[in-house]
Amino acid sequence: MEKFIKQITEEAGLAILKKFGKVGVKYTKEDVADVVTEADLAANKIITEAIKKKYPTHAIISEETEDYQSGAEYCWIIDPLDGTRNFLTRTPMFAVMVGLAHNGKMELATIYNPCTAELFFAKKGKGTFLNGKKVACSEQKTWKNSWGLASVNLSEKNTANLRKLLNHSEKENVWVSAFGSAGVSVMYQADGRRDWRASQGGGLWDYAAASLILSESGCKVTNFQGQPWSLKDREILSANKYLHAKLLKIMNSK
Amino acid sequence: MEKFIKQITEEAGLAILKKFGKVGVKYTKEDVADVVTEADLAANKIITEAIKKKYPTHAIISEETEDYQSGAEYCWIIDPLDGTRNFLTRTPMFAVMVGLAHNGKMELATIYNPCTAELFFAKKGKGTFLNGKKVACSEQKTWKNSWGLASVNLSEKNTANLRKLLNHSEKENVWVSAFGSAGVSVMYQADGRRDWRASQGGGLWDYAAASLILSESGCKVTNFQGQPWSLKDREILSANKYLHAKLLKIMNSK
Repeated sequence: MEKFIKQITEEAGLAILKKFGKVGVKYTKEDVADVVTEADLAANKIITEAIKKKYPTHAIISEETEDYQSGAEYCWIIDPLDGTRNFLTRTPMFAVMVGLAHNGKMELATIYNPCTAELFFAKKGKGTFLNGKKVACSEQKTWKNSWGLASVNLSEKNTANLRKLLNHSEKENVWVSAFGSAGVSVMYQADGRRDWRASQGGGLWDYAAASLILSESGCKVTNFQGQPWSLKDREILSANKYLHAKLLKIMNSK
Repeated sequence: MEKFIKQITEEAGLAILKKFGKVGVKYTKEDVADVVTEADLAANKIITEAIKKKYPTHAIISEETEDYQSGAEYCWIIDPLDGTRNFLTRTPMFAVMVGLAHNGKMELATIYNPCTAELFFAKKGKGTFLNGKKVACSEQKTWKNSWGLASVNLSEKNTANLRKLLNHSEKENVWVSAFGSAGVSVMYQADGRRDWRASQGGGLWDYAAASLILSESGCKVTNFQGQPWSLKDREILSANKYLHAKLLKIMNSK
């Protein structure tokens, strides 16, 4: 199953890469940010068809299609192309995210950026790996000089969170990257390139694989109340053990 | 001279790329963000030595060294490695920036990201080119749904500007990327991948090459008072012709 999840993730990513910079918009939803491209649908098809063929009894939850088998022991949670607007604007920061839950707990996860050929893989209790090599979250001990990750989308929810960050950081030389891809952001956090991230308002596919990739890299991964992340959460708050409490406090401040 | 500026920029960039992910911190200044690496110094040496050899009467202003010839007709303005902290955290978004001023006006400019092999070149009156192909700024006509660029560094100056953006954007689905490299940000704006950017508090080397790359791609490029950008400015406010007035208004709001 480990080999299978890596294989379908890479296959989907390479299919996307072939269309990078070439594909137009297939159709748009209400929001320009939520564009679904040919690449997105192609990647979704590769992953879901492979699962249905090999594991016909498993449930599938995807950003693009839903084929939920009520009561299924195994459930796949997929974002076939995370960072669609980056993809559309020739920005090489997007990712395929695949997670597998077993009896309601995350067990396997992958995140893949085909532009940089970075494949992250996590298995419950075994760690997180970048292209086969074990990685760990950052060792940054102070909020001062830390470097976190924020959303690019200035929605009211996101700006409220961003204002809290600004209020608590502007005298401490804190930095915040906004890449425009949850998957790429999680990669950067899982191997210690960035220190923390708090995200709300996404779908389950934005958080499921991410939660395991982060927890297995040593990050503390919770919801905004500080409870361990679970499949019912549509938000994630994560940082290394030194910074999680501070981030949680900031996000719960006025 | 066109061939020369492209050549020294690429040479410096390739020297940096060789050290990407391998070099440690050589020494630090006060600010962790302002780390000077071996790569930075190596790139600076390549560029400045080439200029001194070929054009011994020209002045040079660099982030790393200054060799200003008072009254010189030509002045080179260099950031040998912009985005140092990205470089140090294995983030492939950094750039070499070289500008040439003639009698106080920008005449030639290059920006190069060796990770993506993107070389931007501009010549006054002739346009901006990405790897030899002419590029243009975005055609986005409305602030709503626009996608700008902000600083990653939450200094007091930057957060003040960010708050203004938030106040005017949160109901309009505006997006803001924060990449952590002025050079890479300018690239994304010059070829229309992003729509606008307002930056303050950098050095001349952050703005000189940038100003020409942007104006020659069709962007309107001013200071925060709306006057055409000049070499005395230590800030830049730029957007396509549809969005510049709005950005200027926001940055001058309370």
